[in-house]
Amino acid sequence: MSFLRFDETTMDWVIFAPTRARRPHDLRRQCHESVESLSATEHCPFCPGNENLTSNEIYAERPPGGAFSDWQVRVVPNKYPALTIESEIRHFDDGFGFREMGGCGAHEVVVESGDHLRQLAKQPVEQIERVLRTVRVRSEDLLRDKRFQAVVAFKNHGESAGTSLWHPHWQVIATPIVPRLLRQKHVVATGYFDQAGECLYCVMRERELNAKQRIVATNDCFVALLPYAGHVPFEIWVLPRHHLASFAFEDASRIRPLADLLKTILLKIDIGLNNPDFNLTIDSASRGDEHKEYFLWHMRILPRLTTLAGFELGSGMSINTVLPEEAAEFLRGIEV
Amino acid sequence: MSFLRFDETTMDWVIFAPTRARRPHDLRRQCHESVESLSATEHCPFCPGNENLTSNEIYAERPPGGAFSDWQVRVVPNKYPALTIESEIRHFDDGFGFREMGGCGAHEVVVESGDHLRQLAKQPVEQIERVLRTVRVRSEDLLRDKRFQAVVAFKNHGESAGTSLWHPHWQVIATPIVPRLLRQKHVVATGYFDQAGECLYCVMRERELNAKQRIVATNDCFVALLPYAGHVPFEIWVLPRHHLASFAFEDASRIRPLADLLKTILLKIDIGLNNPDFNLTIDSASRGDEHKEYFLWHMRILPRLTTLAGFELGSGMSINTVLPEEAAEFLRGIEV
Repeated sequence: MSFLRFDETTMDWVIFAPTRARRPHDLRRQCHESVESLSATEHCPFCPGNENLTSNEIYAERPPGGAFSDWQVRVVPNKYPALTIESEIRHFDDGFGFREMGGCGAHEVVVESGDHLRQLAKQPVEQIERVLRTVRVRSEDLLRDKRFQAVVAFKNHGESAGTSLWHPHWQVIATPIVPRLLRQKHVVATGYFDQAGECLYCVMRERELNAKQRIVATNDCFVALLPYAGHVPFEIWVLPRHHLASFAFEDASRIRPLADLLKTILLKIDIGLNNPDFNLTIDSASRGDEHKEYFLWHMRILPRLTTLAGFELGSGMSINTVLPEEAAEFLRGIEV
Repeated sequence: MSFLRFDETTMDWVIFAPTRARRPHDLRRQCHESVESLSATEHCPFCPGNENLTSNEIYAERPPGGAFSDWQVRVVPNKYPALTIESEIRHFDDGFGFREMGGCGAHEVVVESGDHLRQLAKQPVEQIERVLRTVRVRSEDLLRDKRFQAVVAFKNHGESAGTSLWHPHWQVIATPIVPRLLRQKHVVATGYFDQAGECLYCVMRERELNAKQRIVATNDCFVALLPYAGHVPFEIWVLPRHHLASFAFEDASRIRPLADLLKTILLKIDIGLNNPDFNLTIDSASRGDEHKEYFLWHMRILPRLTTLAGFELGSGMSINTVLPEEAAEFLRGIEV
């Protein structure tokens, strides 16, 4: 069972998930967990036919009349959850003045398809649409549980991005507190709205559309761009053209154009940067702020091309070695 | 020449250092910079005899009567600086409403010794003392430049910790703004002091000394412990027993006991975790707060045993799979 501890020096809550762990000394260098071999579908818990290797299915899409193993997208509990739905949300003191709370939350895996090897960029757009629709449905459903304050949806692609199972999947984590970065972004956006009366993200999107140089691709509903002050080389954001604070409440009609633009972007980085490892996250407003005017949900794609080192970890400040406008120009030139 | 851009969504300044960069497409997967081979001392700019491969020496310690190449510790400008002393500190608007400033600062390398292969843990304690003394002297000197708001001193050990040159070294970066994490820690510690009238870090240290279970080693001047809510497995802090907000103003007499405790800790993780990659940082108060009562400088050692993935990057929240008290017990058991 996991729990959270309060870091008084930063006001962060840290998740402790020793059920995910090996014993302390198992983290020794040579014991690094390595990604299973590419072809090992036989014991893959996410491959069709192996459904018995996962806990109870939470959600799935199947074609009409399809058999159990004919699922197109499948959601199951994470086998080594960072947070669990049964935990208590109570805060308590450890007796020495330190504060702790139960690891209450949810940790789900969204299996992208039955195909063990096909990465998201190479899926047909209908399949990417199914995945995004599923992530949205699960986000909305998790927010119905009033103990959860925020939902973080993300995808790890490749070993240096933290993948431990090859079969392509997303993860959705519901947290009992608002995580630091989401809180920070909300506080900043609220301050901007208080001062300027506009959504900061909508203002930025329009500015970038005017400046043009950092835009990679657009369609009627979404804009993909490299933000002016991106923190890592080739950081890409996908922003809605319409105002909406939470991806959980995105309109069904907009999932297809989102899938379309995401496919374009992922293909461009796959071709241009030779299938780089990356993380993809969706930043949404937390509980109670889902319909506010001051925040705009957005997707961030963070290629793992460089390594966070002592300066970044020590200061919380980023060093980016590639100008977003040069990276955008490079990506615009990649035919997909 | 580098510059900084303001990220309006987080209020962070991001350093752009394209002089450190390859062209955008050079970041492609196969072109990852790799650490030079262990034995390549011939072209190593940090090896004695190769002093001509670096820019002007900023500082060095030499034995009395020693020749130029007899330095024991040597400080030189970073060849690919993130920030430079000649840059302007002026803020300006790019014409579309985005804000930028010059990359004003300093980026120095502290070469730990002439020995290309010997890692810090294996140096005699006198040599570790020399290194720490040099880092302190450089920090104090850089803070004399009123354009610099903070100094971040750190060390990257191993490829996954971001090292690009093998020869053991530290880096000292002076920044024209207070970086996010330092600001956050100062704000939190100030709030605590306002409320409780005590230094948060001193209170924590005393609590940990009472609780005992997360202490690894101590001496008369310093305490090494794994913080209650550490963000990564085996995160270790070294805290002074006396109150002082800035390492730049640490007393000369305390550098030896600090070196002594650091050697113990580094040997313990070297043996116990099989020479793991790690980052080491020194967190100090920023300009103007160096003598305040509300902050305590401290050293953080962050082994790179796990990978930051989408959840951490998406939310700013950490998942730690090893309990600090179990890790501390394990480290206490390692004989050095």
